[in-house]
Amino acid sequence: MTIDDLRQEIDRLDSALLHIFNVRASLALQIGEVKKKLALPVYDPAREKRIFARMKELNTGPLDDQAIVRLFERVIDESRRLERIMTTRDGKEKGEGTACSSS
Amino acid sequence: MTIDDLRQEIDRLDSALLHIFNVRASLALQIGEVKKKLALPVYDPAREKRIFARMKELNTGPLDDQAIVRLFERVIDESRRLERIMTTRDGKEKGEGTACSSS
Repeated sequence: MTIDDLRQEIDRLDSALLHIFNVRASLALQIGEVKKKLALPVYDPAREKRIFARMKELNTGPLDDQAIVRLFERVIDESRRLERIMTTRDGKEKGEGTACSSS
Repeated sequence: MTIDDLRQEIDRLDSALLHIFNVRASLALQIGEVKKKLALPVYDPAREKRIFARMKELNTGPLDDQAIVRLFERVIDESRRLERIMTTRDGKEKGEGTACSSS
């Protein structure tokens, strides 16, 4: 395979990643909504640990487990950041104070 | 959908992400091999810029473009890190000195 062939294949995978990142973030937002209704805490460190443990368990490489954890840390972090942005925006639209509204 | 339903869906997406991360890293390693044979420079900042531009172009949200760029920076960074590890290992196995062998 030439460099161009390999890059085309990477571009295809990147499009799939982009799609999954966004669908995953939407699902995380939905979980945030349900938690809010049930008055559950948003941050759940035990759930994150289970995600990392499951990914390490399933990881076959070539990326090592530390790389996989760093990647999923970023994925989870971006969902959390989005949730903060949305909460702040919703709060402002509704004229409510929120935990994030001072930032 | 309950929190458990949403989490099951996220778990399914995470398994897909794990697979794509590893396939993408393998392809990046193959590109590294081809570049080595052709004596081309490994680091190609123009290619990275094109990846970010393409992802921003295709991004429909809810993650914003900055989040998408941060995610792909991490993805690319982990491939590069893996390539350094492999190059060091290959060099050591062959008894060659490499740019990374002192680390």
